[in-house]
Amino acid sequence: MTSFADRLSSAVGKLASPVVVGLDPRFEQLPEPLTKGVNPRDRAAVSHAFAKFGCEIIDVVGPMVPAVKPQMAFYEQLGLEGMQALKTIVDHARKAGLLVILDGKRNDIGTTAEAYADGLLGAESAWGGDCLTVSPYLGNDSLEPFVKTAVARDAGLFVLVKTSNPGSGQFQDRPFAGGAAGGEPTTLYRLVAAEVERMSAETKTASGYGAVGAVVGATYPQQLSELRAAMPHTIFLVPGYGSQGGTAKDCASAFDTNGLGAVINNSRGVIFAYARKPYAEKFGAAKWQQAVDAATRDMIAELRAETSVGKLIK
Amino acid sequence: MTSFADRLSSAVGKLASPVVVGLDPRFEQLPEPLTKGVNPRDRAAVSHAFAKFGCEIIDVVGPMVPAVKPQMAFYEQLGLEGMQALKTIVDHARKAGLLVILDGKRNDIGTTAEAYADGLLGAESAWGGDCLTVSPYLGNDSLEPFVKTAVARDAGLFVLVKTSNPGSGQFQDRPFAGGAAGGEPTTLYRLVAAEVERMSAETKTASGYGAVGAVVGATYPQQLSELRAAMPHTIFLVPGYGSQGGTAKDCASAFDTNGLGAVINNSRGVIFAYARKPYAEKFGAAKWQQAVDAATRDMIAELRAETSVGKLIK
Repeated sequence: MTSFADRLSSAVGKLASPVVVGLDPRFEQLPEPLTKGVNPRDRAAVSHAFAKFGCEIIDVVGPMVPAVKPQMAFYEQLGLEGMQALKTIVDHARKAGLLVILDGKRNDIGTTAEAYADGLLGAESAWGGDCLTVSPYLGNDSLEPFVKTAVARDAGLFVLVKTSNPGSGQFQDRPFAGGAAGGEPTTLYRLVAAEVERMSAETKTASGYGAVGAVVGATYPQQLSELRAAMPHTIFLVPGYGSQGGTAKDCASAFDTNGLGAVINNSRGVIFAYARKPYAEKFGAAKWQQAVDAATRDMIAELRAETSVGKLIK
Repeated sequence: MTSFADRLSSAVGKLASPVVVGLDPRFEQLPEPLTKGVNPRDRAAVSHAFAKFGCEIIDVVGPMVPAVKPQMAFYEQLGLEGMQALKTIVDHARKAGLLVILDGKRNDIGTTAEAYADGLLGAESAWGGDCLTVSPYLGNDSLEPFVKTAVARDAGLFVLVKTSNPGSGQFQDRPFAGGAAGGEPTTLYRLVAAEVERMSAETKTASGYGAVGAVVGATYPQQLSELRAAMPHTIFLVPGYGSQGGTAKDCASAFDTNGLGAVINNSRGVIFAYARKPYAEKFGAAKWQQAVDAATRDMIAELRAETSVGKLIK
């Protein structure tokens, strides 16, 4: 096997595409062909629609993107049937040759962290993810068991560093007393970033990147730029593109000079493109898969035009 | 319905018992009667053993404790069958009249946070928890959707504030620049605590406590005492008792003067008591249920002797 960082970098390079499609189904936004006759309170039927929706998206975007990112909350919301749908989607994505980033933002300590990592990471695990998002609040001793398992299984992690939400600064941006000697005060996100970069450097493989990535929002381009410079061995998972306001230009500083080192997630802007400008008029619900195709192609083109990803085109 | 805080306070008062039993099964530690003939790599068989273990513990401790706390990681680790075992245990606990605290340490933003809350909180939800643990790293806008759903469903939350692990201070105890005017510097855990207390005060019901509790470790008695004073409307969920080193004396300051305002979790010390001093010799694996019974009774007695919980005895 090859490390997650190397597999992701290789796929991004081959496709000249750093787009991750977020599989975040919401029943009320699914296209009509999938919801017709389905009672929204029937968890089994809704789960079936979610599985079909996810698998069809994978069929469309599979040849164009390196990875998909199912948001676990939307499947867990439906109970056992929802989790079955998640498993169906993960298996379908792997068969299509896509990397699967499970967005669970898990965190816990000691053997509990080990249990999460064991269940979620690796082809032979119960859920079969290639990568998992994790939260750092509990400290390094909560991250270490995740890192150990990730490395052993050639899987990866993305640790929340600077998140894309409007309120992310409340705790993450607060300046600490003292700070760097003679420099500006260190904030929580910088402190977490330093730990992540250390763990990435320690686990780096051929691509130059390590097993521990960082979540940094496209909605904060200044921090994205600052962190890119501070974290040379860390792959970024960048949420906030499109619906949340982040643009291709905002993402430019997430990449290294070779067009690698970052993947950019888009969920609603791709999967529900059929109901959004400029795709709604042309495609509509009946041709929702074509809207997914067009939105994905457009996003790839924007990133190639506005960032160093353009250099990857053969 | 009655609010979670009132139901929990009422149960603790009636039983004169603030003990929460953590249902954290680990296959290699299960008593032999449950593991005999089970292949540890057979997820369905292990899940079946987990369900039986959890339900039998509930049968033993049901009359003595207000709540159980299944750790979701150990069930998720086993895939769909494990999640089925979790559901079986939750349903069994509810039927036994116990409150169920789902320990998932979930966190996300906006509609994703709503999806977690919708799926996990309330009798009619897919998973049927009365309460959920959540992580605050993303900021208040990630906590608010959880609070809204919890209040609407008479459910509760426990937000990670000062966790019990050795490394919890790495981020949580770091002093911020500035801090309270003229006072000592504010730390991350104090900042989170202030937000939690505000949300608790805004949602308080007859018991005087609100829907948003705080996780504060028994392993940090000084912070427990400080936070009790600073958070008069906040119920504490206190991990770290027993195996992690916390004692009944350490927990004394978690309670208000009436013996309420806190619940103390014990996982391994109760559920695996059969293999531990002083219960191993007397009971052993064959009588593991009696060891659970004895360990629970002893913990209740210790807390009644060393804390204001003693005042609740009729």
